[in-house]
Amino acid sequence: MFLRVKASALDSSDGRVILHDADYRLLELSELERVLVEAPRPLLVTVNRTRGLISPGTVSMPPELIRRSGLQEGDQVELSISQPPESVRLIRRSMDGKALEAQEIRSIVADVMDGRLSKAEVSAWLTAVQINGLGTHEVQELAMAMMETGCSLSFQRHPVFDFHSVGGVPGNKVTPIVVSIVAAAGLMLPKTSSRAISSACGTADFVEVFCDVSLNGSRLKEISERVGGVFAWGGAMNITPVSGHFIDVQYPLGIDPRSMMMASIMSKKMAMGADRLVMDIPTGPRTKVRDQEEALTYARQFIDLGKLLGIEVECAITDGSQPVGYAIGPALEARECIQTLEMDARMYMVREKSCELAGMILEMGGIANGRQEAQRILDSGRALAKFREIVAAQGGRPDLCSEHIRLGRFRWEMTSPRSGYILDIHNKQLVAVARAAGAPKDKGGGILLHRKLSERVEKGEPLMEIHADNLGKLERAKEMVLRLQPMLVGGMVMAHARDIHMP
Amino acid sequence: MFLRVKASALDSSDGRVILHDADYRLLELSELERVLVEAPRPLLVTVNRTRGLISPGTVSMPPELIRRSGLQEGDQVELSISQPPESVRLIRRSMDGKALEAQEIRSIVADVMDGRLSKAEVSAWLTAVQINGLGTHEVQELAMAMMETGCSLSFQRHPVFDFHSVGGVPGNKVTPIVVSIVAAAGLMLPKTSSRAISSACGTADFVEVFCDVSLNGSRLKEISERVGGVFAWGGAMNITPVSGHFIDVQYPLGIDPRSMMMASIMSKKMAMGADRLVMDIPTGPRTKVRDQEEALTYARQFIDLGKLLGIEVECAITDGSQPVGYAIGPALEARECIQTLEMDARMYMVREKSCELAGMILEMGGIANGRQEAQRILDSGRALAKFREIVAAQGGRPDLCSEHIRLGRFRWEMTSPRSGYILDIHNKQLVAVARAAGAPKDKGGGILLHRKLSERVEKGEPLMEIHADNLGKLERAKEMVLRLQPMLVGGMVMAHARDIHMP
Repeated sequence: MFLRVKASALDSSDGRVILHDADYRLLELSELERVLVEAPRPLLVTVNRTRGLISPGTVSMPPELIRRSGLQEGDQVELSISQPPESVRLIRRSMDGKALEAQEIRSIVADVMDGRLSKAEVSAWLTAVQINGLGTHEVQELAMAMMETGCSLSFQRHPVFDFHSVGGVPGNKVTPIVVSIVAAAGLMLPKTSSRAISSACGTADFVEVFCDVSLNGSRLKEISERVGGVFAWGGAMNITPVSGHFIDVQYPLGIDPRSMMMASIMSKKMAMGADRLVMDIPTGPRTKVRDQEEALTYARQFIDLGKLLGIEVECAITDGSQPVGYAIGPALEARECIQTLEMDARMYMVREKSCELAGMILEMGGIANGRQEAQRILDSGRALAKFREIVAAQGGRPDLCSEHIRLGRFRWEMTSPRSGYILDIHNKQLVAVARAAGAPKDKGGGILLHRKLSERVEKGEPLMEIHADNLGKLERAKEMVLRLQPMLVGGMVMAHARDIHMP
Repeated sequence: MFLRVKASALDSSDGRVILHDADYRLLELSELERVLVEAPRPLLVTVNRTRGLISPGTVSMPPELIRRSGLQEGDQVELSISQPPESVRLIRRSMDGKALEAQEIRSIVADVMDGRLSKAEVSAWLTAVQINGLGTHEVQELAMAMMETGCSLSFQRHPVFDFHSVGGVPGNKVTPIVVSIVAAAGLMLPKTSSRAISSACGTADFVEVFCDVSLNGSRLKEISERVGGVFAWGGAMNITPVSGHFIDVQYPLGIDPRSMMMASIMSKKMAMGADRLVMDIPTGPRTKVRDQEEALTYARQFIDLGKLLGIEVECAITDGSQPVGYAIGPALEARECIQTLEMDARMYMVREKSCELAGMILEMGGIANGRQEAQRILDSGRALAKFREIVAAQGGRPDLCSEHIRLGRFRWEMTSPRSGYILDIHNKQLVAVARAAGAPKDKGGGILLHRKLSERVEKGEPLMEIHADNLGKLERAKEMVLRLQPMLVGGMVMAHARDIHMP
């Protein structure tokens, strides 16, 4: 059947096209079937039908789909009922726990990328991967296939260093500090970061408080090769765009299959041309990686995968039992990051973690005593100077200091209901409160902790303050924090023997 | 945010609502989030955005969603961003292989039924069920929860007999014959059947060639209690409507998780008020159930499940290695079904299967020597008389005979390329050819086999004929059958020893 292409007014429609009911019947289509649209790049789509939105003889398609298929509005295209793509059979193989060949992994990735698989089918595959896992060679192929869906960079300078955190711990603002130290030591670290998906603040979310993070590939290359580093938003560069399709399905399900996560990280590192990589694996009972054993499994797998993909990998298993530093949320994290570079004595934990990670990278670059060297670079002010150089290259103030950061207008202090020690901090609940306060969209939204694990607090002293750009959100966050009580205060003696009645 | 309800012109839109881009931004929504619509029956929906289709201040909803939520066009409703429903956490539990409690199974079913889970989330659960299976108690709860999503019947007459085939073998036209024999013996069998989803012809598809199958509950009850049986289409009665939501996801994936299939069948039997049930389990290398061992597992599980649900179950493991009888497709199967009742000697296999199944039911009803009794009822013409009585009650000709069935106008005969024996018949390929010829939508589309497994054929003799209502489809089916060669003809000696070269 030939129909005329019309652009749909729907911005997002899950890759569906719209047919008039009359054409739908002529085609003898059922809701469970797929339609092949003959185009310069053929499309396999599912169909909604309408009696009023368009007239018979037309097919309404989202503009993005028209562009992607190489069509123009007004073109005549042929539509026919189609078999499901071959990769549906491969998804069933993954369900059966059978390993897929290189070519099969590529065929799934291509079908996800080009919208030939529905979200329900992508979900089935991700669920199978979550339950059955993938073998190392499957992860390797997946990483390569994901990389090839987007752009790649190649640098004149080598080696290209990189680092990455698997995430799961709030307040992890070490990235600009690590990049600045490493670049100040003369190595090159072109770092791309993501925005928050389920967390309160990604690196890109707080870096854009003080400079531009949307660099295109050539600007990123130029700054990195000249200054030694960047802190850019990966999303601006069209690297591994297929990741977004997987995240669209994973996020509402609340899953992050390990194989998928590893492939996704490594695909991005390959696209960025990384030669040597340090992985930060935050570990703790309330984060993604629960204990040392699990962390070591991750570490081993990253190192093995790196070997297959030509990237030298070292891993740091870091403390994920509580937030890194005190601040959660864009403006607050930006300020704490700069305060650390300014050698503010209170920021010792952020400094410690940054210097450890930077030190590992320096040693991979042949610099002896990396940890001490990193500390020396930070203490001498050379890291701060390099940081300002990068910020300026990314369009920020060349004299940036922590006082320049504007925090949220509205604040509320939560005080301790009793005297005692901080016995537990619930990471996920803190994230939920920070998000209720507006983070990461509202730059001023977030939480500033006044105490960390094991510290002493007296009744009525502040435990944390909530910041917001908007009074309604402050109220929402306040209600939530009072309900959740994400910081547990108790005595060192948790129960008295006389309370225990022996039989 | 308050918006005015407007009916969408999209007939099917996957439970999504449409917001204007301006409202979408005001709500601070992201594509991955869900929206709660406050209504008499609150809705949890995902959102598409538009800049042109509707004006700001309105929310466009599919008419079915407006009805289901108890709203009216023009109502003001409040929309807010919502957490995912609790059942998303339960889906993750199923992924982890953990058993769900009764209440948890019910909560998933309710969320599927009410559209609070996206297709991607339903798919994740079905995939987890496919991989990890469900325990007997979970299947029991699932069956009960599915039943409660729709209507149930209760009869004055008891016991209510029922039977059901798990499917997978083409040409299985025994239902009206079994019902007629059982009803002629004085028992009551109010049989509902489905239409084809992936097969070439469901029972409802061929029965409606000669009478009405869309009976509502009261008409079905009246006919069953008066005449002793019906052959109705289950879809007309709103029993277990949630099944459709599961099928929408399973079908494109090509999966049919055993636990889900069992729960779905038993939920329908409960809704129909069945007391005693015979299950037909076709078994063969090219059908759903591959071998005796698997068939026995199914049988045991059906019997156990029946005990938990208060239905007495017996199972028949039947031959699924090739089509039942010679005909595939609505008109052809209708004719063969009636020919069997007319005691046409060629239909001995359909007669054999029908009498075996009917005999089991008679014995469950206390009639001794069920098999012989069933045969006697058929041979005496009492089954044919009862069949015509039921057909007349369902609005068909009271004098119906096989010559009344109008077959497809266009035919093509496929002849054997060589002399030999039928060594293999590929069920799925025959189904594909019959569907290409128009079945089940075109009543005349289908296949009439001239040979069955192990039978002798000479070169140039017909193997099968393809029927169609439409010349284009005949051509399509012809091309397909020539390409697939679904019937393998070979000699009894399959290889000569001299072809084998020993090292």
